[in-house]
Amino acid sequence: MKQTPQQNQSESVATEIDQLREMLSRDQIKRARRLLKTMHPAKIASLLERLTPQQRVDALHQLDARTEPKVLSYLSSALRTQLAYELDADMGPSEDGASPANSRVDEEPETQLRLVLEALDQGKLKRIARLFHKLHPARIAGLLESLPATERASVWDMVEGERTAKVLRHLHEEVRRRLASEMDMEHLVEAARGLEPDDLVDLIQDLPTATGRQILDAMDQRERERLQSMLSYPEDTAGGLMNMDQVEVRSNIKVGTLLRYLRLREELPPNTDKFFVIDRKHRYQGTLRTERVLTARPETSVSELMETDFEPVPANQKSDAVAQRFEQEDLNSAPVVDAEGRLLGRITIDDVVDVIREQSAHALLGMAGLDEETDMFAPVLASSRRRAVWLGINLITAFLAAWVIGLFEGTLQQVVALAVLMPIVASMGGIAGSQTLTLVIRGLATGQLGSGNTRILLLKEMGIGLLNGLLWALVVAALAIVWFGNWTIGGIIAVAILLNLLCAAASGVAIPLLMSRLGIDPALAGSVVLTTVTDIVGFFAFLGLATLILL
Amino acid sequence: MKQTPQQNQSESVATEIDQLREMLSRDQIKRARRLLKTMHPAKIASLLERLTPQQRVDALHQLDARTEPKVLSYLSSALRTQLAYELDADMGPSEDGASPANSRVDEEPETQLRLVLEALDQGKLKRIARLFHKLHPARIAGLLESLPATERASVWDMVEGERTAKVLRHLHEEVRRRLASEMDMEHLVEAARGLEPDDLVDLIQDLPTATGRQILDAMDQRERERLQSMLSYPEDTAGGLMNMDQVEVRSNIKVGTLLRYLRLREELPPNTDKFFVIDRKHRYQGTLRTERVLTARPETSVSELMETDFEPVPANQKSDAVAQRFEQEDLNSAPVVDAEGRLLGRITIDDVVDVIREQSAHALLGMAGLDEETDMFAPVLASSRRRAVWLGINLITAFLAAWVIGLFEGTLQQVVALAVLMPIVASMGGIAGSQTLTLVIRGLATGQLGSGNTRILLLKEMGIGLLNGLLWALVVAALAIVWFGNWTIGGIIAVAILLNLLCAAASGVAIPLLMSRLGIDPALAGSVVLTTVTDIVGFFAFLGLATLILL
Repeated sequence: MKQTPQQNQSESVATEIDQLREMLSRDQIKRARRLLKTMHPAKIASLLERLTPQQRVDALHQLDARTEPKVLSYLSSALRTQLAYELDADMGPSEDGASPANSRVDEEPETQLRLVLEALDQGKLKRIARLFHKLHPARIAGLLESLPATERASVWDMVEGERTAKVLRHLHEEVRRRLASEMDMEHLVEAARGLEPDDLVDLIQDLPTATGRQILDAMDQRERERLQSMLSYPEDTAGGLMNMDQVEVRSNIKVGTLLRYLRLREELPPNTDKFFVIDRKHRYQGTLRTERVLTARPETSVSELMETDFEPVPANQKSDAVAQRFEQEDLNSAPVVDAEGRLLGRITIDDVVDVIREQSAHALLGMAGLDEETDMFAPVLASSRRRAVWLGINLITAFLAAWVIGLFEGTLQQVVALAVLMPIVASMGGIAGSQTLTLVIRGLATGQLGSGNTRILLLKEMGIGLLNGLLWALVVAALAIVWFGNWTIGGIIAVAILLNLLCAAASGVAIPLLMSRLGIDPALAGSVVLTTVTDIVGFFAFLGLATLILL
Repeated sequence: MKQTPQQNQSESVATEIDQLREMLSRDQIKRARRLLKTMHPAKIASLLERLTPQQRVDALHQLDARTEPKVLSYLSSALRTQLAYELDADMGPSEDGASPANSRVDEEPETQLRLVLEALDQGKLKRIARLFHKLHPARIAGLLESLPATERASVWDMVEGERTAKVLRHLHEEVRRRLASEMDMEHLVEAARGLEPDDLVDLIQDLPTATGRQILDAMDQRERERLQSMLSYPEDTAGGLMNMDQVEVRSNIKVGTLLRYLRLREELPPNTDKFFVIDRKHRYQGTLRTERVLTARPETSVSELMETDFEPVPANQKSDAVAQRFEQEDLNSAPVVDAEGRLLGRITIDDVVDVIREQSAHALLGMAGLDEETDMFAPVLASSRRRAVWLGINLITAFLAAWVIGLFEGTLQQVVALAVLMPIVASMGGIAGSQTLTLVIRGLATGQLGSGNTRILLLKEMGIGLLNGLLWALVVAALAIVWFGNWTIGGIIAVAILLNLLCAAASGVAIPLLMSRLGIDPALAGSVVLTTVTDIVGFFAFLGLATLILL
């Protein structure tokens, strides 16, 4: 017995409509959404026709932004109008609240997030679509990052097709990678086409190689070659930051000609504050600020207006250095050249701002061993695994400290007050040391600290350690004497604290310098090593002195 | 007996030249510098004439960039030439090294710093002046910040007059304040005139009120009024960030007219990517991107080209929010309006980049209680005093932990192994808690975390705490059992670690949220409060359980 596809579909529609009805009636919205996702738009349209008005609206809420218009196109125009009306009635009241005047209510990020979470909870996904329609892509990205990883895909589907690229661009690396890997290839390629080359290069570098390959293959020849040449530079260099949308001019033309050319172009790439002057061999000659074009007479030639003393950025320069130069010289854009001085592209301030933000996130998160945790709502298992490593490293250092204490078990047994006071010595050393460490890490990052002035800094920090060591040694000694009524213990803890603070100052300077010389990032591992030192020195000095003097 | 001023001066010259000769011959360079600083240029010139060539060069090195040309102008042209020659001979070899080709040697920040420190050490200050002459003001600022506070004033004097303002602008707040307070008023006012209004406002806000008053009084009427209106906005708002150098246009003019006006102006303020369209009452109407002017035909009117959907920044908006908007929408400049919608000024990306840098420095330094320590080489006493506060706060929390341990002195006396192991419990809790804390602080700063999703985050963090708690409880228990051969202690430490990690996750979320609701910056105090909690819970759980079970 042979079935025509027609019959087959008609039968499966019969089964699926029952499934769908049951799901909707039982409020199994997520299951319904998954079911609808597997269907062809025409089939969904025919299903919709057979549902009750309420079921219809519920089902419609589950359609993503790309499928919805296709489904609607299969419906009769009467049903389309009716659906639009029903959907509107379903969404209206709860968003705008009692007074229709407070349409500004969803300008508050808090309110937006609440709206999204409520809509998710009730399965009214079109409310999210309507909200997103009004928001800036960056804000949509922010909302997506504020959601649990498991809910993101459904909300992501509500982003309109032509905006997916822009939202993608504003997401953090980890979130972007996770969402992109869940998108189907067709949709991903479509979004990729909407990205600026530098952002697309970032995305491809974040994705699995095969996926990146497929995206590249979907681009046209010229675009692909451009992307490949950009991909050849590491992500953290000028070459990885640059775009290739610069406006290039020749030095012998006149401003009038340039203006005519610009009028023909009609549009300039964003952040165009300079044009770049090149010679016949495409070598960088100088920059021409757009404002000079605006204020010059038409008969002036470019060579009179251009500035030749603007140093181009070498493609292999580290992005940190690029960011520092942009910041120090207040640049908006800068030309990037290869080793032969040929103009490759330009870096713009928006990408530099991203670099600065990433640097600062890196510095902050790295201190807590969260270097790669840019997704606050990553799945529990993924986060647990990453953090476990840091806890494990800390455990080793904690056991080292415990081992030092263990050396003095006999002493502790005889003078139990020592066990009570010993954490104070270690803790003061840790705090003082981390202050010095933080300053040195920052000094290294900003380039303020070089081999010329480390000795000066070391002396300064030792001086601070001495002053604060003396001060707090006296305070702690006094408190310990009052508490335990034992002058010897007071003296011992004072000496131990002073020693530990001096040692903290010295290690706070030495550890990060040593690490950066060994090529280890002190922002990542510095604090663990430092507290290991201050714990060990603290416990050893305190318990060791006590053993010598008290026993 | 009456002396003419002439006689008087001639006599004092006689005394001072002996003093100076002695100082120079004894290598008391700093004293010589201080002496010369008090003298009139004409007097210095007459002194120079009576010194030996070597002494002359040594003395010349000590003159600051403002005094030197004045002194030279009092000398005969023959002596001037001779001096220039002698000075050049004195500087030449040590800088350029053996090969004259490596003039790029001082492009390395390391080398520059070494040069400055050497020159300081040998009292050859003109070498610094020559180096500075070639450097970007931002780099000079960086070098100044890399020097000990005590040496900065001498080096600062070598900055050429017209560049002091630019260098000042690139210095960090604390360093700038310190240097500015050491400058004489005349010099400071001269530098202030070279600053952009927004930077000048920053400087005035940093200086003592009386000094700021004097600078304001030295400005002309119009400038003063402008500055005063800018000073009326807090430093951390849009009003405090803005400049008033915007180009304003009316909507009814044509592009051709605008271009003619721009050509008359000849120059545009830096970072002009937009003009702002205003009405007759100076109310903001929209923006006109400069590129649209470049690409439009002369007969087009501004109203056709302007964009009216660009939301202006309210003057009282917080600078954090401004920075976030610039970053999200990739802006270069934005108009600032007052409550009535009148255009006040504009904010440019260079100032926003400074805000972002400051935020990140604040977040990083704040964690170590170094909130105001932007000057790495501040005097020891000033730094010690600031850091002492943080150590004092930490001491209170350390004593709280010690007090908890003290509750269990009896238990510790009987089972001394507990004293050995207890820091491990506290330390694991502290590390896990600070991971959660860091994420939450960052989420609050970026606006990712709102009341809508805190419950989700709490559940996620508790989940991570549970998983990592179970994992490390087992590991630590196993190690403790192996070490002390006591299964009960292994069980106790396992339970204590699990409890402490769960509690760390909960406090890591709750503490910063509570703090920010109370208006306390969690980046400043969060980590102290958190470690207090994890220490107390850790010690209490471990020793408490041990007391219940072992005794």
